[in-house]
Amino acid sequence: MNTKEGAPDATPLNPLKDMRLSYPFLAGAQGSMPIDSMGRTWSGEYVFNSGNLIEDLLHNFFLECGARTHKMKVYQTTDHPAAREVVGFLLVRGGVHVVAYAKALEITTGVDVTKLIPIPSLNNKAFNEARKYEEKGVHTKLYTWSDNDFNDIAQIWLGTHPEDGMPLEVIQGVPKGVPIPEAPEAPIEFAPGISAEDFKEISKRLKVAANVR
Amino acid sequence: MNTKEGAPDATPLNPLKDMRLSYPFLAGAQGSMPIDSMGRTWSGEYVFNSGNLIEDLLHNFFLECGARTHKMKVYQTTDHPAAREVVGFLLVRGGVHVVAYAKALEITTGVDVTKLIPIPSLNNKAFNEARKYEEKGVHTKLYTWSDNDFNDIAQIWLGTHPEDGMPLEVIQGVPKGVPIPEAPEAPIEFAPGISAEDFKEISKRLKVAANVR
Amino acid sequence: MNTKEGAPDATPLNPLKDMRLSYPFLAGAQGSMPIDSMGRTWSGEYVFNSGNLIEDLLHNFFLECGARTHKMKVYQTTDHPAAREVVGFLLVRGGVHVVAYAKALEITTGVDVTKLIPIPSLNNKAFNEARKYEEKGVHTKLYTWSDNDFNDIAQIWLGTHPEDGMPLEVIQGVPKGVPIPEAPEAPIEFAPGISAEDFKEISKRLKVAANVR
Amino acid sequence: MNTKEGAPDATPLNPLKDMRLSYPFLAGAQGSMPIDSMGRTWSGEYVFNSGNLIEDLLHNFFLECGARTHKMKVYQTTDHPAAREVVGFLLVRGGVHVVAYAKALEITTGVDVTKLIPIPSLNNKAFNEARKYEEKGVHTKLYTWSDNDFNDIAQIWLGTHPEDGMPLEVIQGVPKGVPIPEAPEAPIEFAPGISAEDFKEISKRLKVAANVR
Amino acid sequence: MNTKEGAPDATPLNPLKDMRLSYPFLAGAQGSMPIDSMGRTWSGEYVFNSGNLIEDLLHNFFLECGARTHKMKVYQTTDHPAAREVVGFLLVRGGVHVVAYAKALEITTGVDVTKLIPIPSLNNKAFNEARKYEEKGVHTKLYTWSDNDFNDIAQIWLGTHPEDGMPLEVIQGVPKGVPIPEAPEAPIEFAPGISAEDFKEISKRLKVAANVR
Amino acid sequence: MNTKEGAPDATPLNPLKDMRLSYPFLAGAQGSMPIDSMGRTWSGEYVFNSGNLIEDLLHNFFLECGARTHKMKVYQTTDHPAAREVVGFLLVRGGVHVVAYAKALEITTGVDVTKLIPIPSLNNKAFNEARKYEEKGVHTKLYTWSDNDFNDIAQIWLGTHPEDGMPLEVIQGVPKGVPIPEAPEAPIEFAPGISAEDFKEISKRLKVAANVR
Repeated sequence: MNTKEGAPDATPLNPLKDMRLSYPFLAGAQGSMPIDSMGRTWSGEYVFNSGNLIEDLLHNFFLECGARTHKMKVYQTTDHPAAREVVGFLLVRGGVHVVAYAKALEITTGVDVTKLIPIPSLNNKAFNEARKYEEKGVHTKLYTWSDNDFNDIAQIWLGTHPEDGMPLEVIQGVPKGVPIPEAPEAPIEFAPGISAEDFKEISKRLKVAANVR
Repeated sequence: MNTKEGAPDATPLNPLKDMRLSYPFLAGAQGSMPIDSMGRTWSGEYVFNSGNLIEDLLHNFFLECGARTHKMKVYQTTDHPAAREVVGFLLVRGGVHVVAYAKALEITTGVDVTKLIPIPSLNNKAFNEARKYEEKGVHTKLYTWSDNDFNDIAQIWLGTHPEDGMPLEVIQGVPKGVPIPEAPEAPIEFAPGISAEDFKEISKRLKVAANVR
Repeated sequence: MNTKEGAPDATPLNPLKDMRLSYPFLAGAQGSMPIDSMGRTWSGEYVFNSGNLIEDLLHNFFLECGARTHKMKVYQTTDHPAAREVVGFLLVRGGVHVVAYAKALEITTGVDVTKLIPIPSLNNKAFNEARKYEEKGVHTKLYTWSDNDFNDIAQIWLGTHPEDGMPLEVIQGVPKGVPIPEAPEAPIEFAPGISAEDFKEISKRLKVAANVR
Repeated sequence: MNTKEGAPDATPLNPLKDMRLSYPFLAGAQGSMPIDSMGRTWSGEYVFNSGNLIEDLLHNFFLECGARTHKMKVYQTTDHPAAREVVGFLLVRGGVHVVAYAKALEITTGVDVTKLIPIPSLNNKAFNEARKYEEKGVHTKLYTWSDNDFNDIAQIWLGTHPEDGMPLEVIQGVPKGVPIPEAPEAPIEFAPGISAEDFKEISKRLKVAANVR
Repeated sequence: MNTKEGAPDATPLNPLKDMRLSYPFLAGAQGSMPIDSMGRTWSGEYVFNSGNLIEDLLHNFFLECGARTHKMKVYQTTDHPAAREVVGFLLVRGGVHVVAYAKALEITTGVDVTKLIPIPSLNNKAFNEARKYEEKGVHTKLYTWSDNDFNDIAQIWLGTHPEDGMPLEVIQGVPKGVPIPEAPEAPIEFAPGISAEDFKEISKRLKVAANVR
Repeated sequence: MNTKEGAPDATPLNPLKDMRLSYPFLAGAQGSMPIDSMGRTWSGEYVFNSGNLIEDLLHNFFLECGARTHKMKVYQTTDHPAAREVVGFLLVRGGVHVVAYAKALEITTGVDVTKLIPIPSLNNKAFNEARKYEEKGVHTKLYTWSDNDFNDIAQIWLGTHPEDGMPLEVIQGVPKGVPIPEAPEAPIEFAPGISAEDFKEISKRLKVAANVR
């Protein structure tokens, strides 16, 4: 939720007084920030590497299961269509990571870790906004995010999905995105935006700069 | 500095006892971590956006000047060739960011902020390992880091460098890198590595998995 | 807002349950505390000195602009007359600090930094409760806060105010205050106060002590 | 307060959005956590030992007085019967600790510190839910929490209670508790609980395991 | 290492100046404290409960593996006999917890998680000071730490140890300890201790108090 | 200890690599900072007010005793004459605060708290650099730090000092200081200082500014 524009002596930011989270309005330009639901910030203390391959795979397997649980909680907190669309998609992609670490643990240890999933036992298909992505096979694709490197993940991401048996697929490169929509004008002083007047002045200076070149 | 391999009852990690920073050995697999010189971690509290364009440009201008000062301090702390090579290069690239924010402030406010630099007044060319990069023009290039987007930075990054008058240039895409060297084998239990025995076992399982496909 | 007095088995502190900030009631005697809007405390991590004069002036210039922006946000959050009176006054005095650092930067670097202000571009005169102080010239006075020292600031704080051209003035010493009003009796157990009974007992002891002298 | 069970696409966790404290629901399984009223966690920074016996006794004496004050504030925040029952009992037991440290200070220094109490001057007997425990003598008993050790506290905890003159008593061992009530079934996904189906499956495996023994 | 006694104008605490960790001397009475190797304190942020049984078992399984790895690092940092004796014992007991969580996961999910261990693959028997405890069967015993409760763990802790096939055993109650040795006199001002003079004075007061009874 | 000046490619900051505390050099201009011996910063979490007068006096009494103990530890850590001179003086002044809070507690509660001191029992006169200040009566003077206000402390600070029986004295205003010595020139880039060249340039600008007036 963003606040509205207001004259200097008006109180457009009055809603802040009762909001759970004031930081996005005071230090985040009314956008998102790397903070949790109580305003605690992300911390470098979360960065960890044991130095032992299997332990680190196990760590990431646990973290991905935990992150998926957290997404399920967020999903059940709100039925705002935009929030559910995002969280439903992330449940599916997070599920991919869970399976990927399980398969890597299977290769390195020989134990069939994929049998543990899903944790919690509720399948992604139980959620409307996640199921529709799985019906398109979104849960079977792993991207290399590189034109040339990381192709070896095909030695891990192979065979079938442990929950529904669909064949897995490695895709070279990055997922195709969608055009970033042009954000509507936001003429609010404390949100990203700029007055029409400022806009003209800056345009003029850009032209001068271009000629000076 | 990495520790050596040692038998279970040996004390290969003994050097830790007197090190200033123990975290990279205990929680970082003997690699680098997002911590400062006293072990304090990076924090999301550093993320800030005022919601006002000029204030944010000013903030980033200050931060880049501060980061450059910090690099100068690191440069004068050690003459290890690898450290100086890295820091010398970063001084030059950090200098690019200083100039870019100064020019953006000039366009948006009309004030010639580029006259403030360099802060501190010591030019990058005063440092051997930075000067050699400036001689190659590294300080005049700004990358778009995208094949299609962000080309508008050419409206800011234009004209000449305020310190030596060399013409500025926007380069579409990412800088050409160098092949990542193959890291030498590191058969240490608590650093990334894997025993020859483990390696064979995993290879065997990868083959089985490939056939199962 | 303070809570009311209540009998031991009453619930005078019940409003706490729904307040955004509970600390002032639990650890601050219902007064103000060095915390932000989410209860995060002031931290010594904010103390910084680069060792370079110009960089530190730039830092303070940015900080004062940022603090002024923050005050504008607080001003637009509430129209409580007492809050606006205080914030309006602080906007003006914070503006003085912005100009002072800009002028110091101008002297040390030769660049006319005062042309950057005000950041954000909204002038203090746009706010009713700030304008009335500027009409009295509050924005043109800088105090030495000492009977003898710091007179050299007159070499920086001179000429005219960059926004309205009024002549600047250095005033030796501290600003004249107003008599601190006698706070009304606050017979609440967990706010500063003392029962009539305790008062009499303590008075008696003070008399004994005085005689013992 | 706990949330109710809900179908995957329902929003049983919706109440979180407006709660002061979200952590117990997101990271605490809807139970209690070592956090304060703003979500700040307990910290090892609170652990302190001066190395001087009297200073540490004084520290603990202060801490117990402070903790009792805090309990009084909680008592006056809510009249929920369960909360008051707990806090009333803790006021009495916390009062025991206050007296114990006062008596220890008296023995080690010779100063009659017990005359300082109660701080605040409101006696526990002023609170209905605390008075009823004092009427049973709960404020006069100190336990050794060991079958054999710590009997020397009888050299400190002796004589009479400074507030009402009742004789003090050291009790060897731990206080007799009450049977832990069987918690009602909680078939909520994100609170401790397990589905009937899971329960049967696990039972089956336990039997198999028992036979395998 | 403890500092020695010294006259008021001597410098018995001088070794602090170069120590990695000063807190135990300044705030811990020269004893141990809940801090890590850089002085960072234990934090309530580590307390976590997902609300899902399997996820929490997985979390604890990971944490126990991680704690065991950390103990291996400490073991390889020092060959001080006392340190190794303690760490060797803890490696074995920590190993018990790893196996216990693995077996609980096996019961709840049906997956043979015990095949994953040990992580890292180095067996406790590889360490001299751990092997000697395993030779006594210390790794096969799980205690209920209660005279009456928690006997159901016998449904989990049964069968054989996955690493050496020894039969597992649940022991009701707590492990038998050894008599706590009487610590030598420590007449240092800032470590726990008390002067002979103080001792006599306190004894005298204890006698007076006993008579007063 | 400050580092020396060095050419750009020299390593004047090399000593940092082995220092316990790097912050004063990296973020403090080689001066002092509000940090402890491990680099942990001062925190607003230390600000506390219970809302109950006696509890707050007790808190401050404890804090002053604790601060004095800490000073004793610092005194015994170093025999550097400057450090001891400062710490010796602070021991005496800190002792004044201990006595002042003890006397305030005596007036408000009627209990002779002054008999508890000194805690630890080592008298300030046991330390050479503290004794010399007590011989001048520094421990008997309490300042109002105001020309007109706070004179009522004379109702508390009266009678004699509990340790040596010397008469106590309230002094209106602030203690007479000594002239602040002119710090020697510090031509180091990263410590406060400025080059001779910069100095001339700035002087020139100051003159221009003065004429512009």
